[in-house]
Amino acid sequence: MHQIDILFKDLVSKNRRALSKAITLVESNLISDSEYSQQLLQLCLEKKSESLRIGISGIPGVGKSTFIDTFGSFLCKSGKSIAVLAVDPTSSISKGSILGDKTRMSELSQYNSSFIRPSPSGGSLGGVTRKMRETILLCEAAGFDYIFIETVGVGQNEITVRSMTDLFILLMITGAGDELQGFKRGITEISDIILVNKADGENVIKSKLTETEYSRAIKFLSASTKGWSTIVTTFSSIDSSDCNDLYSEIKNFELNIRNSSMFSFRRKEQELNWFDDLLQKEVLTNFFNSKNNHELIHNIRQQINNGTITATFAVQLLFRNI
Amino acid sequence: MHQIDILFKDLVSKNRRALSKAITLVESNLISDSEYSQQLLQLCLEKKSESLRIGISGIPGVGKSTFIDTFGSFLCKSGKSIAVLAVDPTSSISKGSILGDKTRMSELSQYNSSFIRPSPSGGSLGGVTRKMRETILLCEAAGFDYIFIETVGVGQNEITVRSMTDLFILLMITGAGDELQGFKRGITEISDIILVNKADGENVIKSKLTETEYSRAIKFLSASTKGWSTIVTTFSSIDSSDCNDLYSEIKNFELNIRNSSMFSFRRKEQELNWFDDLLQKEVLTNFFNSKNNHELIHNIRQQINNGTITATFAVQLLFRNI
Repeated sequence: MHQIDILFKDLVSKNRRALSKAITLVESNLISDSEYSQQLLQLCLEKKSESLRIGISGIPGVGKSTFIDTFGSFLCKSGKSIAVLAVDPTSSISKGSILGDKTRMSELSQYNSSFIRPSPSGGSLGGVTRKMRETILLCEAAGFDYIFIETVGVGQNEITVRSMTDLFILLMITGAGDELQGFKRGITEISDIILVNKADGENVIKSKLTETEYSRAIKFLSASTKGWSTIVTTFSSIDSSDCNDLYSEIKNFELNIRNSSMFSFRRKEQELNWFDDLLQKEVLTNFFNSKNNHELIHNIRQQINNGTITATFAVQLLFRNI
Repeated sequence: MHQIDILFKDLVSKNRRALSKAITLVESNLISDSEYSQQLLQLCLEKKSESLRIGISGIPGVGKSTFIDTFGSFLCKSGKSIAVLAVDPTSSISKGSILGDKTRMSELSQYNSSFIRPSPSGGSLGGVTRKMRETILLCEAAGFDYIFIETVGVGQNEITVRSMTDLFILLMITGAGDELQGFKRGITEISDIILVNKADGENVIKSKLTETEYSRAIKFLSASTKGWSTIVTTFSSIDSSDCNDLYSEIKNFELNIRNSSMFSFRRKEQELNWFDDLLQKEVLTNFFNSKNNHELIHNIRQQINNGTITATFAVQLLFRNI
C-alpha cells in the first residue's frame, strides 16, 4: 500500500497523529511534498463529509479563546467532535502564534473529540490561506462535525476567513466602540451571528443595551447569507444556557442553508473564487519570474525613471518585445 | 510637416483649439488614434514643464466648483494660467459629467488663461485614469502654471487623483460628520492642505472650531508628503484674503518640495507605479483573452464546480497544459 493511502486510511479512522502528520504535509513549502499532499487532498475530496465550517472573529480582548474553549467543550459534551484552526498571518512576525494555543483552551483540549491546531506560519496571507483551506479538507476527511476557524479582527483576515466558511460568528463587547469592532468596516455585514460577549456580572445591562442597539442597526445592512437574517444576541461563557441557545441557532442556520441550495452554492462559489485568485497570482508570478521579462522590465522602468517614455507607451513597447 | 508635429506646435503656442483637439485624440478609444496620440505625448514628454498638479477632493456639496471658480479666478488675476480637469468615473453612468462644467465655473471660464475640461467618459476608472494622466501631459506642454484635477470624494477616486498629483487639497465643511468626509477612510492622510470650506456668515465660529479639532487630530496621522506637515485652515469664497493666504501656502509647499528631492521623486514614483499597474493588467488581459486558455479555464472550472479537484491542483493542472 502506498504511504499516502496509509496516511489517508489512518486519517479517516480519526487517528489524531495521522491528522497532524497530514497537516504538516500540506503546510510544507517543499516542492517534493506538494505532489504527495495533492494526492492526499484528492482522496479527501472524494470522501463525502458533513462538517460545518464556522469562522470566529473579533478584536483582541473580545474573548475569542475563552468562547471557543467554553462552547467547544459544550459541543464535545453533547457528543460532537470539533477541530479548531487559526488564521493569524501576523504570527509569523511575532515569531510564534498567539492563537490556537492549547494552553489557552485548557478545558477543550482535554476532550478526545477535540483537535486544536495553531496558525500555520505561512508568511504571507496567501500562503496561510492555501494551507488553511487544505487543512480544512483534512479535518473534514477526519470526520469532525464542526471546524472552527479563529482569526484576529484586523485587516483582511475576516474577509479571508469568511471566504472559506459556511457560518461566520462575530464576537463583540459592549463599550469597546462600534467603529473599532468593525461596524463601519463592513465586518458586521459578513456575519451571520453577532455575539455581544462577556455579558455577565456588572456587564449584563450594558450588554443587553448594546444587543438592542446592534439589532436595530443591522436591519439597515445587507445580510451575509441569503435567506438568513443576521442575529445579534448576548453571550456569557459563565452561563451554560447561552451555549444551549447558541447551539440551537447554529443548528437552525445549518438546517436553513442545507435545505436551501445556499450551502452547496456558497461552497462551490468559494472554491471557484479561490481558483480565480490563485490563477491570477500564478499568471503574474510566471510572467515576472521569467528572466527575459525581468530584464526587459528593468530596462523599460529605467526609461520611465529618466522621463523619456510614458507608462502607456512603455507597456506597448514591452509587449512588442515579448 | 507631419500633422502631429503641427498639432504639437500649436499646442505649445497655447492654442486652445489645439489643446482640445489633442485631448480628444488621447481620449479616443480607436486603435488607429493610439499611435498618433503616443507620438504626440512623446513630444510633450521631451518638453520641460513647470506645472504644479493639484488634486481637489471633498464630498458632494462641500463646494468644490465654487472653490475652483473663486480660487482659479484669483490665480488668473495674479497672472497665472490654470487648467481644470475632472475625474468622475460615475459620470458615464449618469450619462454626462456633472463635473468640470463651464457653467458651474462662470467667472473662471471668462479668463483667457483658464481652460476647463469635463470628465472623460472612459467607462472604467482605469480608462479614465489613463486619459487623465495623458491629458495632464498635454496641459503641461501647453504651459499651464497650475493643473487642477477635481474629483468626487467617493470610493477609490481620491487615491487615484493623489497618485497623479503633486499637491492634494481636501475640502471639508463643518457639521457634515468627520466620518463621511473621509477622516476614517484615510483621506486626510493623503491630503497636504485641508480646507474647512464655507467659513462665512453664521458658519464662521463653527468652522473655526472644526479647524482646531482637525488640526489636533491630524497630528496623530502620518503626513501625506515627506517634509511637509499637513495644514488645516478655514476658507471662504467670499473673503479674498483667504485666497491670498492659500496661495502663499501653495507656493510654500511648492518651494518646499522642489527644493527637497520630493517633487521629482514623487513624480517618478507615480509614473513607475502606474506602469506596474498597467503592466499587471495587460499581462492578465493577454492571458485571459487567449482563446485556448479560455477553453482550458472553462473546463477546469467545471471540474472544480463538480467538486472533483481542489483549486490548488486545478491551477497546477492548467499550467501543465499551457
